[in-house]
Amino acid sequence: MIFSSDNWAGAHPSIAAGLSARASGFDPAYGNGDLDRAVARRFNEIFEREVAVFFVGTGTAANALSLVSADKPGGLSFCHRESHLIEDECGAPEYFMGGSRLFGVDGSLGRIDPGALASAVGRFAGDNVHAGRPAAVSITQATEIGTVYSIEQIRDIAAVAREHALPLHMDGARFANALVSLGATPAEMTWKSGVDMLSFGGTKNGCWCAEAVIHFDTARAKEFGFIRKRAAQLFSKSRFIAAQFSAYFQDDLWLETARHANAMADRLAGHIRHSGAMRLAWEPQANEVFAIMPPVHAQALQDKGARFYDWLTPHGFDGVATGEKLWRFVTSFATTQDEVDRFGDLIG
Amino acid sequence: MIFSSDNWAGAHPSIAAGLSARASGFDPAYGNGDLDRAVARRFNEIFEREVAVFFVGTGTAANALSLVSADKPGGLSFCHRESHLIEDECGAPEYFMGGSRLFGVDGSLGRIDPGALASAVGRFAGDNVHAGRPAAVSITQATEIGTVYSIEQIRDIAAVAREHALPLHMDGARFANALVSLGATPAEMTWKSGVDMLSFGGTKNGCWCAEAVIHFDTARAKEFGFIRKRAAQLFSKSRFIAAQFSAYFQDDLWLETARHANAMADRLAGHIRHSGAMRLAWEPQANEVFAIMPPVHAQALQDKGARFYDWLTPHGFDGVATGEKLWRFVTSFATTQDEVDRFGDLIG
Amino acid sequence: MIFSSDNWAGAHPSIAAGLSARASGFDPAYGNGDLDRAVARRFNEIFEREVAVFFVGTGTAANALSLVSADKPGGLSFCHRESHLIEDECGAPEYFMGGSRLFGVDGSLGRIDPGALASAVGRFAGDNVHAGRPAAVSITQATEIGTVYSIEQIRDIAAVAREHALPLHMDGARFANALVSLGATPAEMTWKSGVDMLSFGGTKNGCWCAEAVIHFDTARAKEFGFIRKRAAQLFSKSRFIAAQFSAYFQDDLWLETARHANAMADRLAGHIRHSGAMRLAWEPQANEVFAIMPPVHAQALQDKGARFYDWLTPHGFDGVATGEKLWRFVTSFATTQDEVDRFGDLIG
Amino acid sequence: MIFSSDNWAGAHPSIAAGLSARASGFDPAYGNGDLDRAVARRFNEIFEREVAVFFVGTGTAANALSLVSADKPGGLSFCHRESHLIEDECGAPEYFMGGSRLFGVDGSLGRIDPGALASAVGRFAGDNVHAGRPAAVSITQATEIGTVYSIEQIRDIAAVAREHALPLHMDGARFANALVSLGATPAEMTWKSGVDMLSFGGTKNGCWCAEAVIHFDTARAKEFGFIRKRAAQLFSKSRFIAAQFSAYFQDDLWLETARHANAMADRLAGHIRHSGAMRLAWEPQANEVFAIMPPVHAQALQDKGARFYDWLTPHGFDGVATGEKLWRFVTSFATTQDEVDRFGDLIG
Repeated sequence: MIFSSDNWAGAHPSIAAGLSARASGFDPAYGNGDLDRAVARRFNEIFEREVAVFFVGTGTAANALSLVSADKPGGLSFCHRESHLIEDECGAPEYFMGGSRLFGVDGSLGRIDPGALASAVGRFAGDNVHAGRPAAVSITQATEIGTVYSIEQIRDIAAVAREHALPLHMDGARFANALVSLGATPAEMTWKSGVDMLSFGGTKNGCWCAEAVIHFDTARAKEFGFIRKRAAQLFSKSRFIAAQFSAYFQDDLWLETARHANAMADRLAGHIRHSGAMRLAWEPQANEVFAIMPPVHAQALQDKGARFYDWLTPHGFDGVATGEKLWRFVTSFATTQDEVDRFGDLIG
Repeated sequence: MIFSSDNWAGAHPSIAAGLSARASGFDPAYGNGDLDRAVARRFNEIFEREVAVFFVGTGTAANALSLVSADKPGGLSFCHRESHLIEDECGAPEYFMGGSRLFGVDGSLGRIDPGALASAVGRFAGDNVHAGRPAAVSITQATEIGTVYSIEQIRDIAAVAREHALPLHMDGARFANALVSLGATPAEMTWKSGVDMLSFGGTKNGCWCAEAVIHFDTARAKEFGFIRKRAAQLFSKSRFIAAQFSAYFQDDLWLETARHANAMADRLAGHIRHSGAMRLAWEPQANEVFAIMPPVHAQALQDKGARFYDWLTPHGFDGVATGEKLWRFVTSFATTQDEVDRFGDLIG
Repeated sequence: MIFSSDNWAGAHPSIAAGLSARASGFDPAYGNGDLDRAVARRFNEIFEREVAVFFVGTGTAANALSLVSADKPGGLSFCHRESHLIEDECGAPEYFMGGSRLFGVDGSLGRIDPGALASAVGRFAGDNVHAGRPAAVSITQATEIGTVYSIEQIRDIAAVAREHALPLHMDGARFANALVSLGATPAEMTWKSGVDMLSFGGTKNGCWCAEAVIHFDTARAKEFGFIRKRAAQLFSKSRFIAAQFSAYFQDDLWLETARHANAMADRLAGHIRHSGAMRLAWEPQANEVFAIMPPVHAQALQDKGARFYDWLTPHGFDGVATGEKLWRFVTSFATTQDEVDRFGDLIG
Repeated sequence: MIFSSDNWAGAHPSIAAGLSARASGFDPAYGNGDLDRAVARRFNEIFEREVAVFFVGTGTAANALSLVSADKPGGLSFCHRESHLIEDECGAPEYFMGGSRLFGVDGSLGRIDPGALASAVGRFAGDNVHAGRPAAVSITQATEIGTVYSIEQIRDIAAVAREHALPLHMDGARFANALVSLGATPAEMTWKSGVDMLSFGGTKNGCWCAEAVIHFDTARAKEFGFIRKRAAQLFSKSRFIAAQFSAYFQDDLWLETARHANAMADRLAGHIRHSGAMRLAWEPQANEVFAIMPPVHAQALQDKGARFYDWLTPHGFDGVATGEKLWRFVTSFATTQDEVDRFGDLIG
């Protein structure tokens, strides 16, 4: 009953097998091999247009370097105030940008509110050198708290970004989970809705270590080779990432693993919904479930072998009263129906 | 006949198998799993003392972040003027240090000359705020041109570093190749000879992607967790690196692959020594062979299927006359005696 | 009736004269002249102990470089969410720190609330590499909205900082105004109350361009020469700053100019208090007065020659209702009683 | 007999008087005052076209921020290997650029050799992400060793820069000294010869503290307001710089002070030329004289009250034999014929 994080899982067997299958033979390094190119073409198919794909090693890198490529002196990047970018990157985005700032914007259930964004960006209109100036907007899909922006909601954010000529970045550490949740196509959820840069995450969804920055704006992509290398994210044996993505996309494995993780979250939420021991904080839309219960109950569950984390709520959440304690449960490709149901039995 | 680079090879079958064997099951993320800890203990054994080990994803990161952890405002890090740090990292060390400078020091055959180092460091004595001040010394073992520092030579460099209270870093992208070349122990080649920080490379020697920063000075290690995370080098599924290192050390695989690569380089050098078509630029000591021949000969070899790179000589080398062209041949765990001998036949 | 800012004034005649008096003759550059040393000793007297004084050119530099000298990888510096550091430096502190973050803390009337600070710092306890870690606390004295921390309030903040082993910085762009407002000594308002670093501002109080970073912790001061030079803040003809400070301290000119500015603010507040056209937003304690009135009234006053700025209230203030408009009036050494009274007549 | 540096002098009486004359009255801060604008127009006249002028506080800032405005990820800025940028800024250019590198180019007598530049830049052609890529070229006029580029020589450098689409920066810390030495116009010595950005120095030539970055490329200028503010170089009482420049340009004072300084250098060189105690290292062309003599002679002169510095020669100079000692003598607006002649008597 491991619901600690989707990154506590290892690699999906097909990913591991796909990687091993590519272990022998020689290939040009640094992304210039045949497999690298084949995977890049696969990304074009998936997104129904030519995109510029850059493999990197971590989601932190994908996010930080995306923002670097949109940054300017005195720049401000707008993201949700509870976003991973702000809360969990040790300041990596600001470090890689050389000091430009993240600006936290409010919005319920982990999604930036378009009005709040317009107002936040608007404060910095007019090229006031004292205040700094907007450089980018970043949304997380699925969000840090397991909700999902609808296509409409992405477009609303994009409209604000466009109005201020700001590129829109999507942190897709859980891109596949959001995608299958919406039933949308990758194109619809990104560039067709106004997204300019995407952190495409494979790690949490069954890969060992496979992340990519995708630029839909090719002008911006031109600089990115240097941005990535300078940031120590150009891998010599690049095919070890390419091989993972190759297996990831094979027979839509990535959609299947995401559907499974989401289904397990849904099943878990069902158990919680009928439990007297805890209650759902909000309805899950992807592979994360947040619930409210007293620490003593949580401790009892952990004593019985369940693993999950408490969730810090620095700003508070709608629906979580002061003093209430919030807990996060994450499912993945490796979560089994059996362990979900065993947990359900525990909270009966 | 692929002698382009040791990073054109994939993963050694045992590394691939070791990684696959760890694909299933749940493990705490970010380096807190049992396997991470077991591998850390293994490093202690290998180095015959307690060391602080931090996995990172690329050699660029290992080098750059090591220097970050020694840096200070106005800092200068001294390395060989032909070193990888200066020539091939796209400025990553300076970027991660936030602008501190690399200072190229001369020395024949890829090794820093201790006298030249003393003189270079000495220029910056006295805390002159205009000039900047020394922060670290970095040597490469094996060097960028396939030579190796003897234990004595490492100690000579360390003596200069110590005199100026500078930490000594070793770029060990080809650590194993140097180790077996010297027949030394890891302890002898590092901390026993005055090395404070080590970039321990596994990738070029048979791993997919396994690098580590090793701090022998535990005070310096205390900061490193933040330095690494801020630099986007903390991997969530850290065990994918741990599993590679685990297999790498199993039954001394790493020494065996290095010995093989060196032996292949030696054999290749033997062929070149007896060839009329080219001559050795200097005696190889690890897994890289440098030879001099006219471009037209090189082209002919490449036309026949040999792969190798020309080598830029911005500063020139002893034994390479102006106008002469230098070529690099790299061997690896995956190089076969057969392809070396086929190449030998070509150059007859 | 210029109440736009205290930096719209030029230089006090005694400062200008003092500077001119030092124009001729030769002096060692970069702060090594006799006058530089004499002024440094004067700072020792003023602070009743040995302090390390570093002249810089702007308040932005004084603040940013103070934080640099306290920073660490993954660092967070805590300041009031409405502070100049956050709102008006174009991200300079983060830029000079290479990406470390400012964390805005709440508190009424421009002062950090010690409880809110303890809670904010506490969130980052435990060396969690994802979250980052506290590096410094910065307070502004007088605050950005014209209020002043009492000695007791400074000590309360210092107690929180000490508990977490964080250095306490004071942004003293309006140091003298706060000092005479409290009737305290410079020592009492700084190191005797737990302040470790001070941005000592002279510019707003009658100098042309005279700012200094003062380190009470001499260990931290040791690095600062390099921090300053690297940041382009070491002035060759350093005596042009020294001469200003020399005149500034002569016969307590600095206290006199600050007292005058505060008295003018007080007189202005008196007029506003009795006016039907506007009301005081809060009681001024230094040389800034904030008042609430409709834009149409403000425009009418500006049409009659009064100069003052509206004040953005991104977070809102106690006592300012939604939709109400806040205006700032700043007085200085150059403000005359006559213009204050003429303004008083206007607002009758 | 103070020949230590032109920054050991104070301010020219007319500069001091001009500054004092502007001490009273109110003016918009941060460069928006009438005087700021008038001086900006004066720069247009001096350069015979519209230029974008940004006041900054130090030459270090002018140089570093110019390079920032031309930088790109993985960027390399090419300057003379003995340049002030490399030797005397404590790494400030790299710090402000966030890590981009300075690349030292060779050339006799302090001037970059166009062929060496072409070769250095050429090494980085082809967008190789490992090597980095050229971003800018910077020349110093007058050079760090008192020589001057002819108009032809500037054009030769500019041609190389243009060929590689690199902006050309001129470090004009001693701009006026070079200008009167050449008898050229400001336009001829800059944009008409291919210069895109200029560090225009006033401090060494009689101002207290007056430096400016001038952009001839207005597109590049658009970003510079943020670059400057973020770097803590936007002065609130900006008119204190404007007033200095106003006086500096009044009745061509700046050309007069530069002519005087150069004439004093020339006179000093004449004395040295006829002295048996020392010899000129090379012919001075501006306000710096370099001579060779044994340390014992130098000490004797210093004992008699002469002040001058030895000059480090890390790379050696043509005409200075190994073991010979080089000394620098700098003249300024404040140098008198009498002290030059007294020195002449000493070295008889």
